[in-house]
Amino acid sequence: MKWSRSLIPTLKENPKEAETPSHRLLLRGGFITQHQSGVYTFLPLGWRVMLKIQNIIREEMDAIGAQELLMPALTTGDVWKLSGRWESFGKDMFKLKDRKGKDIALAPTHEEIISLLAKDYIRSYRDLPQIWYQLQTKFRDEPRPRGGILSSQRIHNERFIQLLTKTGKVWKSVIRNIKKPIPKFSRDAV
Amino acid sequence: MKWSRSLIPTLKENPKEAETPSHRLLLRGGFITQHQSGVYTFLPLGWRVMLKIQNIIREEMDAIGAQELLMPALTTGDVWKLSGRWESFGKDMFKLKDRKGKDIALAPTHEEIISLLAKDYIRSYRDLPQIWYQLQTKFRDEPRPRGGILSSQRIHNERFIQLLTKTGKVWKSVIRNIKKPIPKFSRDAV
Repeated sequence: MKWSRSLIPTLKENPKEAETPSHRLLLRGGFITQHQSGVYTFLPLGWRVMLKIQNIIREEMDAIGAQELLMPALTTGDVWKLSGRWESFGKDMFKLKDRKGKDIALAPTHEEIISLLAKDYIRSYRDLPQIWYQLQTKFRDEPRPRGGILSSQRIHNERFIQLLTKTGKVWKSVIRNIKKPIPKFSRDAV
Repeated sequence: MKWSRSLIPTLKENPKEAETPSHRLLLRGGFITQHQSGVYTFLPLGWRVMLKIQNIIREEMDAIGAQELLMPALTTGDVWKLSGRWESFGKDMFKLKDRKGKDIALAPTHEEIISLLAKDYIRSYRDLPQIWYQLQTKFRDEPRPRGGILSSQRIHNERFIQLLTKTGKVWKSVIRNIKKPIPKFSRDAV
């Protein structure tokens, strides 16, 4: 692979929009480039690093028996209205309507979605423990996106939800609880 | 890995919403589950298959010296207005406004974005050839999403744009052309 055949647009000067050292270095090294405030293209070097990090996380998670899944970016407004976070996220959540006029949210997080999966698919304490995780993009309309990819409008994020316990007894009650409507999450739980 | 610790919710019956064999099999085998019309969660089995396919494509692409990048999902309305596709995509494109009231499009494709990258970073015919590709999600508001993940509102897609030629002469003119405003793409070019 020749340098002249590689897309690694380095910069000699510090870009004005970058306030943090990490942001400056990523821009100057040709790892990322800004599309608009808080939104970046991962250039080949930056994306290679991201894929490497993702694969390391995958190896560690798989080693403890965790299972990766990919949840939707386009989520129904109804799910968020049920949990109370349609209101509490407010302008931090990207909201839109589909062609039929239905409310859609770009998922800023996935607690609601994974709760629905658990409600649908965990039928007995004998199905437990389960460890589920995700490595995927989340969307937030940050008031003042700063810090490059660490506080951007599209966050690459790793989360895992561990569904385990030592006693089936606790889980019988948990299963009963997750059959109920999705609990209210506070904004701080994000 | 025990079956009882795995999230593989198989179905005995054919789900009514699935019209095509591929869609039926993915649902019945516990590979995917529907969040809403045209929007799916990839369950652990389905996501493993997707990651395997992606890695095979990566190996083949890397072998010919291609470079992977990740372009934004949130794109400025301006880019699409410049190319004429803000109008021509019409309701097929998910459109929204950010908290400052600026038009945003969920990228249904990335020709405009990659053209801007070429405009910014290819400065001479000596920078060529370059082969760039992407493995990423695209968003389209399909009127009647059918066929499961093949025609969903969130498409996992592989595209590559090959920027090469045998003569620098041709490319001198190409470079001149890509310094011009983004060309109009027809809806059929998607």
